[in-house]
Amino acid sequence: MRIEGISQRNLFFTIVKSFASDNYSGIHPTILEALIEANQDHVSSYGNDPFTGKAVAIFRSVFGEATDVLFAFNGTGANVVSLQCAVQSFDLILCAETAHIHADECGAPVKATGCMLCPIATPDGKLTPELIEPYLKGFGNMHNAQPRVVSISQTTEMGTLYQVDELTRLCDFAHAHGLVVHLDGARISNAVAALGVDVRTCTKDCGVDIMSFGGTKNGLLMGEAILIFNPELAVNAQYIRKQTTQLFSKMRFISAQFIALFKNDLWLMMARHSNHMAQLLESEIKQLPFVQVTQPVEANALFVRLPASIVEPLQREFPFYLWDEQRIEARWMCSFDTTEEEIRIFVRRLKALAAEQQIG
Amino acid sequence: MRIEGISQRNLFFTIVKSFASDNYSGIHPTILEALIEANQDHVSSYGNDPFTGKAVAIFRSVFGEATDVLFAFNGTGANVVSLQCAVQSFDLILCAETAHIHADECGAPVKATGCMLCPIATPDGKLTPELIEPYLKGFGNMHNAQPRVVSISQTTEMGTLYQVDELTRLCDFAHAHGLVVHLDGARISNAVAALGVDVRTCTKDCGVDIMSFGGTKNGLLMGEAILIFNPELAVNAQYIRKQTTQLFSKMRFISAQFIALFKNDLWLMMARHSNHMAQLLESEIKQLPFVQVTQPVEANALFVRLPASIVEPLQREFPFYLWDEQRIEARWMCSFDTTEEEIRIFVRRLKALAAEQQIG
Amino acid sequence: MRIEGISQRNLFFTIVKSFASDNYSGIHPTILEALIEANQDHVSSYGNDPFTGKAVAIFRSVFGEATDVLFAFNGTGANVVSLQCAVQSFDLILCAETAHIHADECGAPVKATGCMLCPIATPDGKLTPELIEPYLKGFGNMHNAQPRVVSISQTTEMGTLYQVDELTRLCDFAHAHGLVVHLDGARISNAVAALGVDVRTCTKDCGVDIMSFGGTKNGLLMGEAILIFNPELAVNAQYIRKQTTQLFSKMRFISAQFIALFKNDLWLMMARHSNHMAQLLESEIKQLPFVQVTQPVEANALFVRLPASIVEPLQREFPFYLWDEQRIEARWMCSFDTTEEEIRIFVRRLKALAAEQQIG
Amino acid sequence: MRIEGISQRNLFFTIVKSFASDNYSGIHPTILEALIEANQDHVSSYGNDPFTGKAVAIFRSVFGEATDVLFAFNGTGANVVSLQCAVQSFDLILCAETAHIHADECGAPVKATGCMLCPIATPDGKLTPELIEPYLKGFGNMHNAQPRVVSISQTTEMGTLYQVDELTRLCDFAHAHGLVVHLDGARISNAVAALGVDVRTCTKDCGVDIMSFGGTKNGLLMGEAILIFNPELAVNAQYIRKQTTQLFSKMRFISAQFIALFKNDLWLMMARHSNHMAQLLESEIKQLPFVQVTQPVEANALFVRLPASIVEPLQREFPFYLWDEQRIEARWMCSFDTTEEEIRIFVRRLKALAAEQQIG
Repeated sequence: MRIEGISQRNLFFTIVKSFASDNYSGIHPTILEALIEANQDHVSSYGNDPFTGKAVAIFRSVFGEATDVLFAFNGTGANVVSLQCAVQSFDLILCAETAHIHADECGAPVKATGCMLCPIATPDGKLTPELIEPYLKGFGNMHNAQPRVVSISQTTEMGTLYQVDELTRLCDFAHAHGLVVHLDGARISNAVAALGVDVRTCTKDCGVDIMSFGGTKNGLLMGEAILIFNPELAVNAQYIRKQTTQLFSKMRFISAQFIALFKNDLWLMMARHSNHMAQLLESEIKQLPFVQVTQPVEANALFVRLPASIVEPLQREFPFYLWDEQRIEARWMCSFDTTEEEIRIFVRRLKALAAEQQIG
Repeated sequence: MRIEGISQRNLFFTIVKSFASDNYSGIHPTILEALIEANQDHVSSYGNDPFTGKAVAIFRSVFGEATDVLFAFNGTGANVVSLQCAVQSFDLILCAETAHIHADECGAPVKATGCMLCPIATPDGKLTPELIEPYLKGFGNMHNAQPRVVSISQTTEMGTLYQVDELTRLCDFAHAHGLVVHLDGARISNAVAALGVDVRTCTKDCGVDIMSFGGTKNGLLMGEAILIFNPELAVNAQYIRKQTTQLFSKMRFISAQFIALFKNDLWLMMARHSNHMAQLLESEIKQLPFVQVTQPVEANALFVRLPASIVEPLQREFPFYLWDEQRIEARWMCSFDTTEEEIRIFVRRLKALAAEQQIG
Repeated sequence: MRIEGISQRNLFFTIVKSFASDNYSGIHPTILEALIEANQDHVSSYGNDPFTGKAVAIFRSVFGEATDVLFAFNGTGANVVSLQCAVQSFDLILCAETAHIHADECGAPVKATGCMLCPIATPDGKLTPELIEPYLKGFGNMHNAQPRVVSISQTTEMGTLYQVDELTRLCDFAHAHGLVVHLDGARISNAVAALGVDVRTCTKDCGVDIMSFGGTKNGLLMGEAILIFNPELAVNAQYIRKQTTQLFSKMRFISAQFIALFKNDLWLMMARHSNHMAQLLESEIKQLPFVQVTQPVEANALFVRLPASIVEPLQREFPFYLWDEQRIEARWMCSFDTTEEEIRIFVRRLKALAAEQQIG
Repeated sequence: MRIEGISQRNLFFTIVKSFASDNYSGIHPTILEALIEANQDHVSSYGNDPFTGKAVAIFRSVFGEATDVLFAFNGTGANVVSLQCAVQSFDLILCAETAHIHADECGAPVKATGCMLCPIATPDGKLTPELIEPYLKGFGNMHNAQPRVVSISQTTEMGTLYQVDELTRLCDFAHAHGLVVHLDGARISNAVAALGVDVRTCTKDCGVDIMSFGGTKNGLLMGEAILIFNPELAVNAQYIRKQTTQLFSKMRFISAQFIALFKNDLWLMMARHSNHMAQLLESEIKQLPFVQVTQPVEANALFVRLPASIVEPLQREFPFYLWDEQRIEARWMCSFDTTEEEIRIFVRRLKALAAEQQIG
């Protein structure tokens, strides 16, 4: 584990590995190979190319032939396009307070849709019928934004998971009240790997209306797929994507990555690995008296409270973020390229710091 | 020259080369090599990485240290971010009727800014002080959108060029009336190659306030740089980019491409080549009596009127677009990877079709 | 005719009468009486009151029981609400270059809808199928805003009129291409008075989908009615009105005015009078060699070119606007309270100024 | 007290008096008289008239000569214009969860500004530095909407009041963090009457940057004044008002009402009266064991929990709203025209209903 110093590289640092985010990692070699292979000849732009045709066909074989598939550059873009497919400006979008669309996108979904978000406090990043019910009011009252979308993240931003029955129940409840369900699937691969079921079973078949299937955080250079199961939401999707600046001219270079991602279940293998690394990390630290795991470790993220004095020395060697600076709660994120050795070195260093400081 | 049939590749076609658009081409090998090299280790996301630091430093060495540099995914994204940096919703954006922001972006700039565009008819895609003067009115009148931006494309969508003195005069005129100048530089490399001057001389030094430096159409996988010379326009640019969904998490993969693009003036060599190919194509066809070149060939595009009966047979082998279906006016676009041989084959086929049809 | 001097009234001037605009006039006495009568008791707010019920019933008796009726404060508000009922942000709104929504509303319709306007040059403020046809393109192409609305003004901003057959033909053409027709009826009363037909015959029955019925410019304190004939456009109208800030809490005070406006055809009598005054003014000046009427006088507006030296002296006594300062083209607008005597004094003064200056 | 039956008036009801809202009441006779007097002659439109000049001068004499004054039609309009003066789309607007801009405007402020609201739970509708502090984070972080405005209501939607020192402390805290303070003054008159201090002392002098001075809920036909104390927020206000559809052509008819409202402190007398009526109502009911006053009665509103079985019979005779249907919490609002007799009749009926039902 090595950190390039600021002086060496123009005020920026690089690191061999980190527990900061799954977007600190790069491109899986197989994906990169696919990019190289796709770089031949001219092909039509804006998705009218054989790579995109094939990638769409793969998604349809997985999620059903009626699925509409649109590729987007990034997660915020996929969310913003998806929500616009579902709402008009006087609608209300319900989400967890911790949702990426609420907490981390600089208001992009609000600006693009014109809609108010209704952020709901949760213990674990998960919405339930009970949590959203109090906000399902004002229907037909012109003074009130009209509840229209329940937007969830799977896995959540807290590293937790909706079980299949939980998601089904939530979707049923939303539909019963005339709402549609959007799923931010930036880490859907980690969720599927953890749930151990078919990806369609735990998304479309639960009743999800529109979702993103994230690639960027699971070994792609970049790329997200917007999957529309509810055909009413697909009618204007292509215009919305273009107007949201998310239409890629050389689209083959997203499509080719997704083709490679699905070949031999690479997406699932990568996700299983990063989930497994998180479990390993948890098992290594859970006996340490000075570390407190604050959320169930269900996918590739750990949330832990640490002694204040350990944070900075540890971050200097293994970058990670403090999720909550008040509580000194860190988020440790494992990636497709995290190794067992790195975890052992990391935990050893954690223990050493505690020992040095006579903690625990 | 070979066209992959529909049956072979899932209802889509691929082509070895085309004259359809510079976004039908792929990635220059040197750029691809840079991507591969950048794919090591973890680095901080969202631009806080050494590649981005270096790429920004390169742009600053070229355009001046005070330049603000933000990378974006695509041309529409760069335009939409840039215009938002310059306007409030009650402002008016003047542009040529043919401008990409008016004709080809599904209204994205209007939706994002809330502003009216003022499209101005031009013979050649170029604005002049004389053309914009009639629209510089209503200042201070609350019933009128307030003229605020002159947005131009260099090269224009008609393949034409602003000379240095023309651009300087236009910028001076705009500034004298309190407007700022935005330059859509999706093909700025072709313009610089054609003008034969330093890139700063023909952009910032003419008075341009904000511009994009396009990479996608000149050999990058994707990537545009937004360059802000007028510091007042830079104040909120980072929030605007994020809110426009144009912030790339794994930004090193844009930055590394730009680093490679500037090494040994690769950008200029590619642009010179595609311009040269356009000139070659023009010289090969300008004696043909049945082809009429309708715009000066100043960069990498040709606009030509063709006999109606030739269009489809020619397109089948060498895809290109009809710019104006009424006038049967085609656009032929040369790319960094267009070869002399392809042009000769193309022209030979054009002549053969004319002969078959006893045209000319 | 008397002009209050600046010194007397705090730097502002008042005038007994003017030819500046029909919004320089006040409230018709009968309308004012209705306001006074409505000022009794408490009534439910936001339109759930007996006055609004009655006013809606009157509009339905005139335009058909299926008509949706929403009251708004002002003309810009009515236009902005109506257009939002008809479009999504990637749609295109076609209108005359002179349309109020394009020229006089500070971009409000664009900001609210997110849509591009497509302003079309016309000789007389009127759109025709021939004029709009060239812009009916790009359907289904995600790069293009989708033509969706033809927005017209009746009477036009040039004081001209669509005849019944012209409007029918335009609506049929729009519908045949999948577009809907919006009619800005800020001066619909003047149009109906001039056409001499039933108001439904020259609006809904021609094929108009949504329109405003203006009151402010025809003797109301304020108030416009949005009339929706195409039920698909009505679905969300109430939310759109509220979100556009056009929902009046004490709505009885708009509704009561409309009730009075329709009693004994007051609206039509006022409009006939102002039209008649415009004809009188035209007949009085058309022999003057130094005045050139530039548009057919079909309702209550005159457009005239004047000698430059006459403009200011005449404006000082009888305020009016120069429509086109370059051409020295004035707009003279007659109002429900314009009198024959005022016209005679005005024309006498015009002639005197010409004589003084030895013009004509 | 008399209720017109549904059958008598076209499915709508009218009522002599109610405790539903201060917008159920009509126009104060003195205000109506002013409207009648203003209805003479032609005057320039859009505010360039002597009435508006005088009304602006009055506001400046009260709030300081540097105050920018813009009239608007209604409260939502005034809020939406004011907030746009203060923000860009990536900013964050903090407000109480109960704020009108959050709960009652169908998302209008969000659509117009593009900003996220940050609704904060409060016990009494009032924000404090302690309540907003947790949300003052993410400054300079491009992933986060930037805290920019603290928006409060005075009186609050819960009928409570900010004391002068409370408001000063909140403004100081906001300014210290780079935020500005917006005050929704739909009921500012009631607040001033209750505080018993000069209106400037309890608004501008506390540090408020921009506010509305409401007329509609205090005896006007309609009309709100937007007062801008922070000159940076005034720069583009006129364009923003027009673009928000809140510019009234016949503006004299708002201005004349405000002139009359300030003559002999009519606004304050009306507000004192409605406050006094609320106190009277409170004193009449506070001994009743079956009624629980839930908020301090500081202005013209009472919030009370009632036995469920009493609600509907009481509403049938004296319309009022249930604020919280779960808790059976009613809002009783007094108005400038509420009389002591009405309160006595109302309380008598309340007691009679309880007796009939053997409650208490």
